[in-house]
Amino acid sequence: MTTAWERLQPRLRELTDLATTIKLLEWDQSVMMPSKAAPARARAIATLEGTAHSRLTDPKLGDLLEELGNSDSLDLDQEASVRILKRDYDKATKVPEDLVRALAEQRGHAYHAWTEARPASDFSILEPHLEKLIDLKKQEADALGYEEERYDALLDQFEPGMTSKEVKTMFDELVDGLKPIVDAVLAAVGERPDFLRKNFSTDKQMQFCEWLVKTLNFNTDEGRLDISPHPFTIQIGARDVRQTTRMDEKELLFSVFAAMHETGHALYEQGIPATMSDLPVGRYASLGIHESQSRLWENQIGRSRPFSDFLLPKLKERFPEELGMVTPDEFYRGINHPQRTLIRVSADELTYNLHVALRFEMELQLFRDELEVADLPEAWDSCMEKYIEIRPESQADGVLQDMHWSIGALGYFPTYTLGTIYSAAFFTKAKEEVDNIEGDLRAGDTKQLLEWLRAKIHSQGYRYEAKELAERVAGEPVGARPLLDYLGSKYSELYEVSI
Amino acid sequence: MTTAWERLQPRLRELTDLATTIKLLEWDQSVMMPSKAAPARARAIATLEGTAHSRLTDPKLGDLLEELGNSDSLDLDQEASVRILKRDYDKATKVPEDLVRALAEQRGHAYHAWTEARPASDFSILEPHLEKLIDLKKQEADALGYEEERYDALLDQFEPGMTSKEVKTMFDELVDGLKPIVDAVLAAVGERPDFLRKNFSTDKQMQFCEWLVKTLNFNTDEGRLDISPHPFTIQIGARDVRQTTRMDEKELLFSVFAAMHETGHALYEQGIPATMSDLPVGRYASLGIHESQSRLWENQIGRSRPFSDFLLPKLKERFPEELGMVTPDEFYRGINHPQRTLIRVSADELTYNLHVALRFEMELQLFRDELEVADLPEAWDSCMEKYIEIRPESQADGVLQDMHWSIGALGYFPTYTLGTIYSAAFFTKAKEEVDNIEGDLRAGDTKQLLEWLRAKIHSQGYRYEAKELAERVAGEPVGARPLLDYLGSKYSELYEVSI
Repeated sequence: MTTAWERLQPRLRELTDLATTIKLLEWDQSVMMPSKAAPARARAIATLEGTAHSRLTDPKLGDLLEELGNSDSLDLDQEASVRILKRDYDKATKVPEDLVRALAEQRGHAYHAWTEARPASDFSILEPHLEKLIDLKKQEADALGYEEERYDALLDQFEPGMTSKEVKTMFDELVDGLKPIVDAVLAAVGERPDFLRKNFSTDKQMQFCEWLVKTLNFNTDEGRLDISPHPFTIQIGARDVRQTTRMDEKELLFSVFAAMHETGHALYEQGIPATMSDLPVGRYASLGIHESQSRLWENQIGRSRPFSDFLLPKLKERFPEELGMVTPDEFYRGINHPQRTLIRVSADELTYNLHVALRFEMELQLFRDELEVADLPEAWDSCMEKYIEIRPESQADGVLQDMHWSIGALGYFPTYTLGTIYSAAFFTKAKEEVDNIEGDLRAGDTKQLLEWLRAKIHSQGYRYEAKELAERVAGEPVGARPLLDYLGSKYSELYEVSI
Repeated sequence: MTTAWERLQPRLRELTDLATTIKLLEWDQSVMMPSKAAPARARAIATLEGTAHSRLTDPKLGDLLEELGNSDSLDLDQEASVRILKRDYDKATKVPEDLVRALAEQRGHAYHAWTEARPASDFSILEPHLEKLIDLKKQEADALGYEEERYDALLDQFEPGMTSKEVKTMFDELVDGLKPIVDAVLAAVGERPDFLRKNFSTDKQMQFCEWLVKTLNFNTDEGRLDISPHPFTIQIGARDVRQTTRMDEKELLFSVFAAMHETGHALYEQGIPATMSDLPVGRYASLGIHESQSRLWENQIGRSRPFSDFLLPKLKERFPEELGMVTPDEFYRGINHPQRTLIRVSADELTYNLHVALRFEMELQLFRDELEVADLPEAWDSCMEKYIEIRPESQADGVLQDMHWSIGALGYFPTYTLGTIYSAAFFTKAKEEVDNIEGDLRAGDTKQLLEWLRAKIHSQGYRYEAKELAERVAGEPVGARPLLDYLGSKYSELYEVSI
């Protein structure tokens, strides 16, 4: 006689395989697919999402999970897997299949419209598609249900267990604490160094990024690095983690730090044991935890003084003419040059979270029905003036800069800042527990640190909710304080200001 | 009230989307996937094949097709679509779902084993996987059923309506007719010209191939060109046709003629109207017809005197040092240099079909239980001596050279020769009906010829069975004669021999 756990296995494998398939359709859509195939691809993704949804909502799966929920013969990972899948099942059964399909298809259309709207700097190309999509997302939130407000239902999809209220409290603390630091530092930084804006062959940049991700222990037998306009990382399936970087001939740092950032995501995915790959517990804990890894590799490592001292000579080997005269001091200042910029993805670590605060505010208003999609461009520009004190001159540099909304990722942006908050807490702890991190980074050796992250975070998969995992790693509840301390001390020293 | 035809539409769309998904999983497996992901990918493909199979064998679809088979309100394309889908349904319902899944998974394992066995030149790595696969294929053939012999059931999957007997008759006629031509020409050709074996940068080769496929009107807004060890073309979905070529630094002609060949396949797929893309009639007629297009572009066009006169100066622009001194006569002879070679894909058009005859003979024996998988390497080598009069020195250059068997494509090889036979008949007709083909080719202008092919073949989709389509295009039943005439006249002139 087979146990309920054994009977669950083929269903877990099927759900994994369907998820793999959908992720490959999406990765290919962003990285490889010829442009005219967009409508057919949107439909294919919608069809597969429908299939996956109907397998997840199979009442027989519900019965099996019910039975397993009462079982006392499961080990801890099995127990966690049942709990996670039960929550997925409950959520999925609340959303009608028609709505799931409509959402998937509309995401494809809106994403395609965004790829045209952004280069044309014309929000009106995206507007009708986004309006329809936001309307469907409201229906989705209402179907999922929530206690205090509609946006909580969306947030919960990316950062389970977090409410708008909790997030708002953390954001307010952070923004208030950042304000005096940002004002003092930006008054002192002066012009951005010239050496960062030359012509850097994109072929050589790509070769450098390929070397860099391998040096950081990204396993290319179990992954790939490609180019896409908006960098991202995706785990396609067991032993298949793909990251992308973006290339700009005029901005060497874009590709290098996008590669550092995405490698953080990719190392997290590669660090979840492949033996867990069919189990719901073999999954990242939340997007905030995911982002804590990318931020840690991009900022705490990549923009640190010791690692920048390792990086510069390596860059000089590839770009001797362009960078030959740059000193280590200049380089360290150059890669940590905060400024008021319009674009989130090129924002520095000091002002970055203000860009996220803006988006969080827009999203809250949209889902509180306090803001219409048609009014987004104007609302965006005004909010930009409030937080960053500059105003976009084009929609491409304003409301159209991110693809997130066009792919239905609403409730997603806040996780960037949650991740940044976690990353500072984690790195503070790592410095206490790992010997001589600074010496390692100066030698470009991140193995010890990676092992620590693997043990503390990656190998845990989704055993704990993000908040609990973060507290276990940091040894205390995590708030904005470690991040504010880190930024305050780094930038006051760098630009010789007192804060 | 909706008609039966209308009720069929969502099912057709779903079947198309599932097929798209499986084809993308396979394309990615060959072109993009990191090596360690192979087991997970094999399983994902098996799962999706299982899903597609269960949708195709849904009894409700059977009922609908039954109803539509008796309808008199369908137009010709709808009628053909119902007929084709009914045959697919009948075939699929004969094969148990377990066997379908086992085949899909075993194909993944065997293909992966082949990718290791070939570089190691060690058949024993592939043997157990191939043995299991052949056994499953026999079960499949028996489930499908056949009138005269088991192999017919497999052949019918690639060249519907053709029997082993008919194919054998055509092969015998061809091999008999070829024998005196091959013997006379090979006695006269002498050494292969040196200029073909230099160092040709693979980056430049790829740039040349990208230029070449666009010049031949391959639409890159609706397709891609990539690199893979074994070139292939696949229609992923509507407006998404992907081809690959292979690169060898020492052999310029490999990449160039692989690109010509695959472009023939790709133009066929791009020529089937996108409006037909969800209909079973909006499909290629058979693999033989498919191959007729690739052979026509590779040989009748690519290796013709006028097109070679167009190609050479273009190649000299990319490779001035390597090819600067080559004359048009030398080049034309060089790209038409027949020889006894071990490798099918680098065989010339004169001896190519002897390589196929060998494989057809092996496959017939395997499925007649006259040959064991374990005995394949020895049988291969002996047969090679019979047809080509040389013996492989390694398994990599013998039985392991093709991936086809490892992906379960048994009954597939004969379609290469059927296609070559069709291509000669079609080109003979095109020369009668299209003005000044020779002048066009000399200018590298293939538009008129492409339009003729689109009208006569591509736009017809799967309205007619291959044999009937070929007869409609050629104006008479098609046999080996036009091919023998073409080869005889081309090579007797080129090498000044009388045949």
